[in-house]
Amino acid sequence: MSAAQDRNGLPVLPVLPEGDSTPPERGDAARNRALLLDAARRLVDERGAEAVTTDDIAAAAGVGKGTLFRRFGSRAGLMIVLLDEDEKALQQAFLFGPPPLGPEAPPLQRLLAYGRERLKFVDSHHALLSDVGRDLQMRFNAPATLHQSHVRLLLESAGTTGDLDAQATALLALLDADYVHHQLHDRGRTLAELGDAWETVARKLCGS
Amino acid sequence: MSAAQDRNGLPVLPVLPEGDSTPPERGDAARNRALLLDAARRLVDERGAEAVTTDDIAAAAGVGKGTLFRRFGSRAGLMIVLLDEDEKALQQAFLFGPPPLGPEAPPLQRLLAYGRERLKFVDSHHALLSDVGRDLQMRFNAPATLHQSHVRLLLESAGTTGDLDAQATALLALLDADYVHHQLHDRGRTLAELGDAWETVARKLCGS
Repeated sequence: MSAAQDRNGLPVLPVLPEGDSTPPERGDAARNRALLLDAARRLVDERGAEAVTTDDIAAAAGVGKGTLFRRFGSRAGLMIVLLDEDEKALQQAFLFGPPPLGPEAPPLQRLLAYGRERLKFVDSHHALLSDVGRDLQMRFNAPATLHQSHVRLLLESAGTTGDLDAQATALLALLDADYVHHQLHDRGRTLAELGDAWETVARKLCGS
Repeated sequence: MSAAQDRNGLPVLPVLPEGDSTPPERGDAARNRALLLDAARRLVDERGAEAVTTDDIAAAAGVGKGTLFRRFGSRAGLMIVLLDEDEKALQQAFLFGPPPLGPEAPPLQRLLAYGRERLKFVDSHHALLSDVGRDLQMRFNAPATLHQSHVRLLLESAGTTGDLDAQATALLALLDADYVHHQLHDRGRTLAELGDAWETVARKLCGS
């Protein structure tokens, strides 16, 4: 692979595009968009995505519901933007952030930190990730492939032998939104226990 | 665990019920049911499930289409019965059959054989398993839990340390119907390669 490499010799992954090709929003539109996203994020954190309606979001943002639909098209559209922004923040952290997630830590330590961090993310974003996971186009494309690539690279850098794609897939099954939700809510497991399980499997695959 | 054990000390798993509580079918009805299932199995083997219609099945079985709907309710009903019969046959093989699948082989050998056998099954039953996998009720209940239990028991008998449920989940991700289909049809992998990958992960988890 001849892509740019970070200081640990890991190829640097392509970053998700920062915007799209639509023209820049006017000031009011951009401000309303930010107000709506902030309100939605706060409500989802408080109640879980399932319990948040477009009425709630518009009221909390102090804008009309028509504005929400003009900016995001639908409730689903807003939730996808919200997920995408949070995905980008986590992505920045694991590609460029401080250790143990970022590139200054050794690969196995990064892999263990990634699992525990992603478990928290998956728990707080369950409803939307579960929807997205049922869509096969999404499942085998970005940003799912970005996680696959990241885990694969860390396994490789940690000296893992054998089929790296398969081992990344096996490991990532422990971060599947529905699996995590089922373990936490139906089986009484905790995020710490699921993080320990991630560590067990990651260490065995790396041979450490 | 105090359940009955086989000769290798493995608890014997409960077997799926052989029938349901409906009264026995009359001779004609039972014969038509068998003819329709045989025809459907043959056509699915030849063309894949997606390309088989109820017209095809009824014609190949030499019965009217009305008979098909009386016996199975719908095309989906027939396909579920077909999958269930084939699941039972594979289940018999891995619970009670000859080695390397069955109980006379050592646990790791059984686990490796199970992976390769199940990959073939998943490939030939892709369309229906994929439908069923999207249904969460099915995903976390029998027969999915039966596979989880079987793999967990074999890991345990092979001396695997750490969280057995998580490791069984990670391993079974390599047999997921959509994953296998994607690897075979979009990535150009072969069943033999996917079987080798299963073996790599299984051996690492068992520490062998």
